[in-house]
Amino acid sequence: MAESPRTDPINPTDDTARAQARALIAGAAHAALAVIEADTGHPFVSRIALAQTPDGAPMSLISTLSAHTRALLADPRCALLIGEPGRGDPLAHPRLTLRAAARFADGAEDAALRAHFAALRPKARLYAGFADFRVVVFAPHSAALNGGFARAYALTADDLRGAAG
Amino acid sequence: MAESPRTDPINPTDDTARAQARALIAGAAHAALAVIEADTGHPFVSRIALAQTPDGAPMSLISTLSAHTRALLADPRCALLIGEPGRGDPLAHPRLTLRAAARFADGAEDAALRAHFAALRPKARLYAGFADFRVVVFAPHSAALNGGFARAYALTADDLRGAAG
Repeated sequence: MAESPRTDPINPTDDTARAQARALIAGAAHAALAVIEADTGHPFVSRIALAQTPDGAPMSLISTLSAHTRALLADPRCALLIGEPGRGDPLAHPRLTLRAAARFADGAEDAALRAHFAALRPKARLYAGFADFRVVVFAPHSAALNGGFARAYALTADDLRGAAG
Repeated sequence: MAESPRTDPINPTDDTARAQARALIAGAAHAALAVIEADTGHPFVSRIALAQTPDGAPMSLISTLSAHTRALLADPRCALLIGEPGRGDPLAHPRLTLRAAARFADGAEDAALRAHFAALRPKARLYAGFADFRVVVFAPHSAALNGGFARAYALTADDLRGAAG
């Protein structure tokens, strides 16, 4: 069986890759959120609505009754997959994995980000007033960009800065 | 702030939920795969192409150069999110999380499943002949079905059986 022609699948990071990653973050209305379940240590993944804080950080409003929120309250380490698969080959469409730490907002920050999220994501108005939903802000510390076959990049938190525009 | 009207968000499993989960598995051409990275213990999530084995198990063909394959070779515990977000509210569309163990095929099973996958997923013919791609078969042990707001179910492996039709 033939070897793949690729020896190192990670390309050197350039401004095109940085811009593509920032555009994926800015355009994401949802994400696949990966967490570690506290009771078993097992990985779990679920879909969440996504928006950006005024500072450009990915954020969401998630139910404390859900498996992902329980997991994040016990272990803030998580990963977010963003970028739509679209039509045709699902692996031909760019996508970005953010390795991140989740932080839950409280007090005035919670109230401000709840209103901000509901303004950007009108469907969230259904549950934005519920006390058992929490505002979560994601601080990415690294990312893996896959811009399509043989277009993989490893990005730092600095590469992602400027996502707010 | 008001409490959510939901007290227990998990509905009793019924045949409609089982059928919806099986249909999501049968129709999935890709998934978000969550794994635990071996070097850090951090969750990671990436998009993979997906099909079903002749026995109805979710399977893929993944590169040993990728982060998810390296993670699964060290720790087979994983989760798969399937179900397209589609148009409109991304949380209104049904999706299914499978908690699973990954197993890599060898020998005759590897050859047979490689050909099977390439027949079902023509784009995979680009890399189906590469020795540094591996056939991975996922054995689900439980699942979380979210059929839309307040339509959550916890499913067992038995509930998922029959996915091959």
